[in-house]
Amino acid sequence: MHKVIFDTDPGVDDAMALLFLHHHPEIDLLGITTVFGNAEIDVTTRNALFLKREWKIDAPVARGAGETFIPHRVHEPPKFIHGDDGLGNIGVPEVTDVHPDPRPAHRFIVETVRANPGEVTIVAVGRMTNLANALKEDPEIVGLVKEIVIMGGAFDCNGNVTPAAEANIHGDPEAADIVMTAKWPVVVVGLDVTMKTVMTRSQLADIRDAAGSSRARLLFDLSQFYIDFYEGLVDDGMVVHDSCACVYVVAPELFKTRSGPIRVVCGGIADGQTIQKPDGRGFGPSEWDGDLPSQKICTDIEADAVLELIHDVIASVKED
Amino acid sequence: MHKVIFDTDPGVDDAMALLFLHHHPEIDLLGITTVFGNAEIDVTTRNALFLKREWKIDAPVARGAGETFIPHRVHEPPKFIHGDDGLGNIGVPEVTDVHPDPRPAHRFIVETVRANPGEVTIVAVGRMTNLANALKEDPEIVGLVKEIVIMGGAFDCNGNVTPAAEANIHGDPEAADIVMTAKWPVVVVGLDVTMKTVMTRSQLADIRDAAGSSRARLLFDLSQFYIDFYEGLVDDGMVVHDSCACVYVVAPELFKTRSGPIRVVCGGIADGQTIQKPDGRGFGPSEWDGDLPSQKICTDIEADAVLELIHDVIASVKED
Repeated sequence: MHKVIFDTDPGVDDAMALLFLHHHPEIDLLGITTVFGNAEIDVTTRNALFLKREWKIDAPVARGAGETFIPHRVHEPPKFIHGDDGLGNIGVPEVTDVHPDPRPAHRFIVETVRANPGEVTIVAVGRMTNLANALKEDPEIVGLVKEIVIMGGAFDCNGNVTPAAEANIHGDPEAADIVMTAKWPVVVVGLDVTMKTVMTRSQLADIRDAAGSSRARLLFDLSQFYIDFYEGLVDDGMVVHDSCACVYVVAPELFKTRSGPIRVVCGGIADGQTIQKPDGRGFGPSEWDGDLPSQKICTDIEADAVLELIHDVIASVKED
Repeated sequence: MHKVIFDTDPGVDDAMALLFLHHHPEIDLLGITTVFGNAEIDVTTRNALFLKREWKIDAPVARGAGETFIPHRVHEPPKFIHGDDGLGNIGVPEVTDVHPDPRPAHRFIVETVRANPGEVTIVAVGRMTNLANALKEDPEIVGLVKEIVIMGGAFDCNGNVTPAAEANIHGDPEAADIVMTAKWPVVVVGLDVTMKTVMTRSQLADIRDAAGSSRARLLFDLSQFYIDFYEGLVDDGMVVHDSCACVYVVAPELFKTRSGPIRVVCGGIADGQTIQKPDGRGFGPSEWDGDLPSQKICTDIEADAVLELIHDVIASVKED
């Protein structure tokens, strides 16, 4: 079993990833921590509570950061991608009967990691702010976490919010640089592979029909606005960014990786860009020298197999 | 015929590119302008004069910039790649019987372009300093140049002097940003394609033997130190960076290109990195917005055909 904390900003593709984690038989979901990003923190936390209730998820929801690690940075939620309500404008109701964990997300992370030393994988698919805050509060957790799997960044390809940068990293570059240069094992699942992983509308409808559940119907419904946004950017369908990171936890053999220290550009025209110094390559003196840990980035993906696994796992629970 | 100014910092692969330009029947080499880079400006200018004499090149040599466009930047020549003498430690003699053009390189460029309006291609394979200085002296030349073909940069791959940046651009990022955002047509032939274009030692020996000339023998001899440096970085042989840019002039069909505005990162951990905003891709507001010209970068190359063309052209002149 993989003990997982899911750090997320739901968010449409976050919702699919959450249902995948919830349904996968080898995932023990210990907690859901929310962060601002695809929407404001009030909205992403409300959405996490909504999905917890609708999908009968036991794991607690802990509310996380509402602003960047360095507070001066501006944040504008991409409502044109995830909708005004962060879940594709399905009209998410206010949730009053399910309550968040009393702890802030970064403390929930610290305490959960300390309670399960060496066993917790954190799948982080929003801004890296909660993880940076957790590291600030308790730097020793770097030795206690099993693995950090991040959806974010763009290495040998363009970004998506600027030509240089991907949204999750661009949204809090200082936090991301802290997280990726910390001495815990990090795997970054970036646009290099997620943009190749497109679930078609009909595959998503297949999931809905195969499951026959209100869970899968909700997922189908909340995804339509997001799919509409991606029309013209990719072939018909849904880029399943966040689910790729979840699949990595259970099926890393479907990814090709490259090892080396990672830095994040903070400021300037490449603000938020992720850059890796591949292990074994020689360069002149650079900001990647010194005592930086070697982390992994994903350079290729067996996209069809990943999509099939997502389909099978989400469709596996047929009753509500 | 292609009228060409070759802006260069010889430099080993510069020497091969110069011999290619000199021997190609469709190239009319109007001038050689030198710049610091692979060695100090005294050395690269001396080397250009030496090669002009040894290879019986009529075109004048105009001495160019010895320091970056913004003078504070530090420059350290890569003697471990091109040798102490910039030409592979063959022991280049001082050249006293051939003299440079009286004009500085940037003025030579301006006057040559104005004398041949719409006809001059500038192949720039060193720092972009001379071109930036030419633009500063006479901004109107942007409308009078046929094309700028640059060897430099790294777009969807790592750099070579840092994980982010390629040497020619890293050596003077402000100049490169000026040149690439100016409204003349630019084609950038970067590491994305040049690192795929490796001439083996035996191919280079074939050229020497096929030509049977002292010219080809000199090229072979001066290249050995550089090939030794690249051992372990590429399969046995010589990365023909600068010749790729020259081949583009006469055989652009051997390259796959992508269009869009280009910016160069100036300062910070990604100093000298080149980033393109591909035309037709949507992003949020960024430093690539506004009135920037769409330029071309090379994304793929028919390396075998390029190497064959270099071989055939350089070996085509058999007598000295």
